Amino acid sequence: MSTGAIAPAEVFRSGLGVQGVFVDAADKEPYERSARHGGGDAVGVLRPGSEKELAWTVGMASQLGVLVVVQGAATGLVSAATPTADGRQWVLSTQRVRDVLEVDPINRSVRVSAGYRLSDVNRAAAEVGLAFPIDLGADPTIGGMIATNTGGARLIRYGGVRENLLDVRAALLEPAAVVVGSDRALRKDNTGLNWPQLLCGTFGAFGVVTRATLKLHPIQRQSATALVAVSDAKAAVHLMCELEAEFGEMISAFEGLSAGALDAVRQHQKNVTVPFATTPPYAVLVEVSSAIPPGRGLDLEAMMMAWLERRMEEGDLEDAVVDKPAQLWRIRHSVSEAVQSLGKMVAFDLAVSRSRFAEFRDAALEAVAKIVPAAMLCDFGHLGDGGAHLNLVVPAETAPEQIAELRDAIYDLTVLRFEGSYSAEHGIGPYNETYYRRYADPQTRQLATLLKSRFDPNGLLGNVDLG
Amino acid sequence: MSTGAIAPAEVFRSGLGVQGVFVDAADKEPYERSARHGGGDAVGVLRPGSEKELAWTVGMASQLGVLVVVQGAATGLVSAATPTADGRQWVLSTQRVRDVLEVDPINRSVRVSAGYRLSDVNRAAAEVGLAFPIDLGADPTIGGMIATNTGGARLIRYGGVRENLLDVRAALLEPAAVVVGSDRALRKDNTGLNWPQLLCGTFGAFGVVTRATLKLHPIQRQSATALVAVSDAKAAVHLMCELEAEFGEMISAFEGLSAGALDAVRQHQKNVTVPFATTPPYAVLVEVSSAIPPGRGLDLEAMMMAWLERRMEEGDLEDAVVDKPAQLWRIRHSVSEAVQSLGKMVAFDLAVSRSRFAEFRDAALEAVAKIVPAAMLCDFGHLGDGGAHLNLVVPAETAPEQIAELRDAIYDLTVLRFEGSYSAEHGIGPYNETYYRRYADPQTRQLATLLKSRFDPNGLLGNVDLG
Repeated sequence: MSTGAIAPAEVFRSGLGVQGVFVDAADKEPYERSARHGGGDAVGVLRPGSEKELAWTVGMASQLGVLVVVQGAATGLVSAATPTADGRQWVLSTQRVRDVLEVDPINRSVRVSAGYRLSDVNRAAAEVGLAFPIDLGADPTIGGMIATNTGGARLIRYGGVRENLLDVRAALLEPAAVVVGSDRALRKDNTGLNWPQLLCGTFGAFGVVTRATLKLHPIQRQSATALVAVSDAKAAVHLMCELEAEFGEMISAFEGLSAGALDAVRQHQKNVTVPFATTPPYAVLVEVSSAIPPGRGLDLEAMMMAWLERRMEEGDLEDAVVDKPAQLWRIRHSVSEAVQSLGKMVAFDLAVSRSRFAEFRDAALEAVAKIVPAAMLCDFGHLGDGGAHLNLVVPAETAPEQIAELRDAIYDLTVLRFEGSYSAEHGIGPYNETYYRRYADPQTRQLATLLKSRFDPNGLLGNVDLG
Repeated sequence: MSTGAIAPAEVFRSGLGVQGVFVDAADKEPYERSARHGGGDAVGVLRPGSEKELAWTVGMASQLGVLVVVQGAATGLVSAATPTADGRQWVLSTQRVRDVLEVDPINRSVRVSAGYRLSDVNRAAAEVGLAFPIDLGADPTIGGMIATNTGGARLIRYGGVRENLLDVRAALLEPAAVVVGSDRALRKDNTGLNWPQLLCGTFGAFGVVTRATLKLHPIQRQSATALVAVSDAKAAVHLMCELEAEFGEMISAFEGLSAGALDAVRQHQKNVTVPFATTPPYAVLVEVSSAIPPGRGLDLEAMMMAWLERRMEEGDLEDAVVDKPAQLWRIRHSVSEAVQSLGKMVAFDLAVSRSRFAEFRDAALEAVAKIVPAAMLCDFGHLGDGGAHLNLVVPAETAPEQIAELRDAIYDLTVLRFEGSYSAEHGIGPYNETYYRRYADPQTRQLATLLKSRFDPNGLLGNVDLG
């Protein structure tokens, strides 16, 4: 513990108690790691236990002028919730902010404190036949999900976090300890500026989310899942359009899987079965689902079988397997780990318009081949919403300069040539701040600076600067 | 034409041509009316014919320091697009800004200039089996819809405008003529501040929407519609929950109709048939629909009939009629006009949480009876999303002070006691600016002031002040 921190620690302890402030190395350590890109070093960890304590902590941090990085479940992939390496930041953990979790079955909404996890919300919602259908590999806190505007595999059906917010409350540094936003659970309210939209997807730069009111949806009571082999990404896009014309609002996922991704699963996830005899050039995991209970006149599995048979007869599918959702999703969910087993992974979280997806993927392949000819492309993605997790495995001896060149080339290609996004889902953190500086336009950055000067004039909050 | 306007008119004409600037009374007149609350008086009308001309006009207005009110199709109900009565404002009409209307069938999106109408977009989208499913009584421009964040009758299924924006471009006054935002048609892009969310629902206070990229949805290929009689609003809410458990994502509208509204239709819309022998205490128009084509294993009409039969057997419905959508929607759509035929209408555009809807309606009835005992309640609303068009007919001799008292009482009840909205769909305009001042919290107003000072430091734009 640095000497400079003694006084703040005592002040924070006066409001949060002994269990609310960690300064010992062993206690701090779990809060200093990052889910993907290494860790940092914190002055200490602040652990308020309610919205009231959270607002007090934020206000006190502002008054004391200490640096703070807010952390939920630390499941993000861009280090936005990890303290910096210089040991100057306090981690403000929202994990104990769990004073409210109230499902309203009639309004189909839930009022929930920032520290609850996605799984907590879904457990409570399931009891009344509802769900918060943001589908992710991780189990983040609700506060983190709002700050990051998480998307996931079922965005094509339900939208992301932004589309599912009824209201958000947040504690401000300036004016210190003031909580903005409300608890109103309204689907329609057209009365001016909207706090949820300012706080969602801005990575906690302007305030700390304390709680939110979220839309819930009827839980899915039946689904049909197929893994379909196609000749290439272009054929996959074509298949997506045909599926949408046939199944409309029932489509809940359309996930692309490259041959490289499937081969990685085959080789390194021995307990996962890839159901094709030979790996196809490209495959898609298709899911249709409905809240309509079985036996009421809708049988999605039969409809899916009939549709696939028609498509097979017309000769535009290579192969298709219908199986239990859990079996097929295991393939998709094991890709990341499998790819990492292959060697040194270089990961990209990109998005383009769906109509340019196939062309973009070809261009990306070409760019990769030029810079690191030995790279293997093991991409997968949420093709239904244009998301592309363009994951590459490069030889262990690849020079850092080569990887930097590769990253620059892929990002330039995505943003400048294909009008795409260099961070489709993961948000902005120290990991990709460089690219924010490169691609964000001056007007957007000036607006961020203005808002930052309003809400955090001394720049105490967070480890990214959106200005 | 006032002498002070000569110079600006000439300047504007230099960029927009003779057809781009109207200053004669007859030419101006159509732009000076309001859809509901009387008209105003404009210096002149500016009619740019492209995004480029629109940006130039906005920049020039800023340089000249002239007051501007932006107008799309002037279908709004709060006079936000109507010039003030003092004759000091120019109307900036976006109706000729129609340079781009490009549907992308693969991306399910449309890039569209501000001046196109909702019906234009839907006509173009329908050609490729898609729709922009914001369902309104009027036919506004896309620019107006974004500024207002319009909702409508099918919000329960598709969300409002805010949930369906991929990108928005807008022309700024400061820096003059700069266009912010982009044309990127991305469903996932998590890279910081988001112009669409700032420009949507802020009534053009910060900039003038020039064009947008919107999500499109597969067009509905089958539907089933029923008019169901229930004992009261509480039973209607109960029915809604049962319907959602049974039809899930298929529900596209759930509209409440009071006995007063039905009686008004009966009496004053002779060509519309209300199918019940006696008017029930409350009724709901239920619509389920799907993009799944008929003959593919889904028959919504059969499912709706089966469900209604079960409900009738269990004795919790008074009566129900299944009919062609057009027939039943005619009843719903004729309510406003019918109610106005009854006498002096006092209209409210409110929203509450769905779980408090019935209790709220009872409390509102009670409040009305106290202040104007002779008032007739002819309310209807988007019960599925908590929207309540609490329309009253009051005796012609009702004093303005009594109406003012009534408005105050209903708004206080809605906002303060029921945590509801005093403007669910219509937005903020001169018509309800008083209520904005009363209910908007200080932090929200301060933020609006900060943004206004950034984007329109001389307060030239619009006729509402969100600060």
